[in-house]
Amino acid sequence: MTALAAGIDVGGTKILGVVVDPEDPTTIVAAQRVPTPRGGDALLDAVTELVRALETSVGAIGVVGVGIPGLVDQDDVLRVGPNLPAVVDYPFGTAFRERLGVEVSVDNDATCAVWGEHRAGAGRDVADLVLVTLGTGIGAGIVAGGRLQHGANGFAGEPGHMIVDPHGPPCPCGRRGCWERFASGSGLGRIARDAALAGQLDRVVELAGDAELVRGEHVTAAAHEGDAGALAVIDRFAWWVALGIANLVNLLDPALVVLGGGLVEMGALLLAPTRASYDGLVMAGDRRPPVPIVVAGLGEQAGAIGAALLAADDA
Amino acid sequence: MTALAAGIDVGGTKILGVVVDPEDPTTIVAAQRVPTPRGGDALLDAVTELVRALETSVGAIGVVGVGIPGLVDQDDVLRVGPNLPAVVDYPFGTAFRERLGVEVSVDNDATCAVWGEHRAGAGRDVADLVLVTLGTGIGAGIVAGGRLQHGANGFAGEPGHMIVDPHGPPCPCGRRGCWERFASGSGLGRIARDAALAGQLDRVVELAGDAELVRGEHVTAAAHEGDAGALAVIDRFAWWVALGIANLVNLLDPALVVLGGGLVEMGALLLAPTRASYDGLVMAGDRRPPVPIVVAGLGEQAGAIGAALLAADDA
Repeated sequence: MTALAAGIDVGGTKILGVVVDPEDPTTIVAAQRVPTPRGGDALLDAVTELVRALETSVGAIGVVGVGIPGLVDQDDVLRVGPNLPAVVDYPFGTAFRERLGVEVSVDNDATCAVWGEHRAGAGRDVADLVLVTLGTGIGAGIVAGGRLQHGANGFAGEPGHMIVDPHGPPCPCGRRGCWERFASGSGLGRIARDAALAGQLDRVVELAGDAELVRGEHVTAAAHEGDAGALAVIDRFAWWVALGIANLVNLLDPALVVLGGGLVEMGALLLAPTRASYDGLVMAGDRRPPVPIVVAGLGEQAGAIGAALLAADDA
Repeated sequence: MTALAAGIDVGGTKILGVVVDPEDPTTIVAAQRVPTPRGGDALLDAVTELVRALETSVGAIGVVGVGIPGLVDQDDVLRVGPNLPAVVDYPFGTAFRERLGVEVSVDNDATCAVWGEHRAGAGRDVADLVLVTLGTGIGAGIVAGGRLQHGANGFAGEPGHMIVDPHGPPCPCGRRGCWERFASGSGLGRIARDAALAGQLDRVVELAGDAELVRGEHVTAAAHEGDAGALAVIDRFAWWVALGIANLVNLLDPALVVLGGGLVEMGALLLAPTRASYDGLVMAGDRRPPVPIVVAGLGEQAGAIGAALLAADDA
């Protein structure tokens, strides 16, 4: 057996750690989850303790991979992470290596996730694929010609801030109409609140208690009951998801698009209208092979497993 | 000396053919230009005659590369080309090889151009670069990690139909608000005519004769005279150019953006406001290394030289 690899997926609210044998990465040897603390030093402590706890449960860990939501440069420094507001220019790679005493690779979380899907998930044997994570924000990872794409600085794969409507709502990033204003969990909530305030979502408002309190989960719940207003909101939301995917396909021409992130828990409720809208939004859709749009095969563990595999592949 | 390579760049209105020594590709051994005929068979004849004429002038040609504006698949079949309206599913690769009796590679024109720039132009020694051609429409070529990116089907690099404003003007492709509705030569003309019809472009209208006849070249001419209205139109146009470039940089993280196509003849008039707007449109512009935006080093020959080099590299 090769040395075990730990993969840590740092999210905005929780950190997931898994241990896998790189030869059999879909079998999780150990897993543990802790809340994400605020600040770089606290995050360093939390990940260190998580790795120590995993190590205690499995014996010994050979390498550690960490996925972080943000721009991670080629020296494994987190330059900025919108969902880690108190952390800027933090040298996680160096710091983790000192703390843990093993080889540590640090990368963007969606970059880790696409590698997990390519090596062990829905994108196995697919040389050209894009993974899009639909969560609070939007991230992406790109594999092209079988190679993980990092870009010149390690920052490749940030379609969430692709501007898709310059007249659209302001984004915390300082611009207007970024894709994640429409096609993320926050986007779904905003589209739904607009519809609720316009009086189009009686059942959803009933579930939420107040139009201003409407969130994605209320829309999903009402849609599962068959509520027409909720289904219309999801159609509108899926159209925006499809628009961004079509933009990515026009540029990258992948053979497969994998969706990850919390919103894929919506299942067919999201996938069916996304696929339906996509066909009319991609360039020359009638003259190119169809691009399957599927859910991550590794589910919410794609990022952690991918981080572990990246660390093992680098070692 | 290695065998000479011919590179043919098929445009919507003209075909440029060059012959280079692949070891010294910036020295043009021979060049010739003919009009683009309508229809696949006529195009086949025209390119064949052009290669024969080049061959007569230089002695012998070892390989031929052809760049075509459109989706060229991995079997060198042109699936569809918006600027070659009468040509669909045309097997140019097979047809050229039969006619010419030498190795022929066929690729998208902007893909050829980025390879020319990477091997012999502004992007020499740059492993990650994007070339964007701003002409009647918009094309792109991508080099990532030193490798030319084709995508799964050969269709990578079509940002012209990235939707950047769903409320925007209709596009001949059937959608609305594609980037090339704003940031191509046609986009500049449209933005200028809108301003002219709104009475904001007296000098430009004077040059064009009528507001409905305003085109990009009238704006450029008035701007060179210092006309404020014309300069404002170019600023607005450059903002759209910069928006799409920022979207590409967010996704691909290149170290360099090279601009080609007819519009770069505007020079600093276009480049200066594009660079100025770009800084505010890219994600985390203050936390990433600046990305130079430069004009193609091989000028309008980038596509033809790149096609020749691709053919030589493939051989």
